[in-house]
Amino acid sequence: MSTQNLTSTAVINSQELLKHWQGHRGLTRRTIEAFPEDKLFSYSIGGMRPFSDLVYEFLGMAVPGLKGIATGQWPTWADAEKVKTKAELLALWDQATAEINEIWETIPPQRFEEQDVAFGMWPGTCISFILYFIDNEIHHRGQSYVYLRSLGIEPPAFWDRH
Amino acid sequence: MSTQNLTSTAVINSQELLKHWQGHRGLTRRTIEAFPEDKLFSYSIGGMRPFSDLVYEFLGMAVPGLKGIATGQWPTWADAEKVKTKAELLALWDQATAEINEIWETIPPQRFEEQDVAFGMWPGTCISFILYFIDNEIHHRGQSYVYLRSLGIEPPAFWDRH
Repeated sequence: MSTQNLTSTAVINSQELLKHWQGHRGLTRRTIEAFPEDKLFSYSIGGMRPFSDLVYEFLGMAVPGLKGIATGQWPTWADAEKVKTKAELLALWDQATAEINEIWETIPPQRFEEQDVAFGMWPGTCISFILYFIDNEIHHRGQSYVYLRSLGIEPPAFWDRH
Repeated sequence: MSTQNLTSTAVINSQELLKHWQGHRGLTRRTIEAFPEDKLFSYSIGGMRPFSDLVYEFLGMAVPGLKGIATGQWPTWADAEKVKTKAELLALWDQATAEINEIWETIPPQRFEEQDVAFGMWPGTCISFILYFIDNEIHHRGQSYVYLRSLGIEPPAFWDRH
């Protein structure tokens, strides 16, 4: 088998990637739920941000970033609006879940491999931006698992995605 | 645009996925390097495993898992062999880096979407196994960033992949 053949082997399509991301987002939602209300907005180790701040970052990337990918029009980079309760944060999360599904269907197929500048600051292909959104969420959620364990709380199962 | 069109839009090919994974693996290597020798094998928060144990898990999945994907023959699931020094762990890491590149080229293109049972225990498509290997590494590496920060050590930049 030549490398040429392998290079052209598609391994993930758009709908599979959306399902993969939303599976991870379901796990992130359960991680938010696992935090005690006060700890969600205040608990920190080593000077790192509380989990709520990390969730604002996920939200600031997801829908605004997908809009940029779908339209080529990028907003200024910013975290999502701050809220005061877990219920409000979960509501923002669920709103984003629905919007991601809606916007995803409007992304022109050729956009995934196109070069652009995310939020006017970070150059790359649109697919690299989406992988970054997902990876960043996995990375910081991994951080939150340590917060939970150090609080004596069992985090949701990492392998469980729905 | 119909959903039918989107469904068939390939967004990642095999070589791009290998590059993406090896980029993450380079970051994991720098994370191993960032740990003080003793803390790599002993430091824990909340009863979680030291980072060395997580690296054994990454190594136990990567090459043995790819061999299973390439050949359909799965070994029994196990962590990698234990070592005593950071230098030995980095040597195992570098050996796996080379083996991943070699085995990758031997994966029959149709295997990525085929159903199999990883390590004889976990059913799914071969591409789902590879995504799990990558996501699991990102997740536990995120955990190690908290270990490092709580030790007063700045972790390598998450966005830097080489």
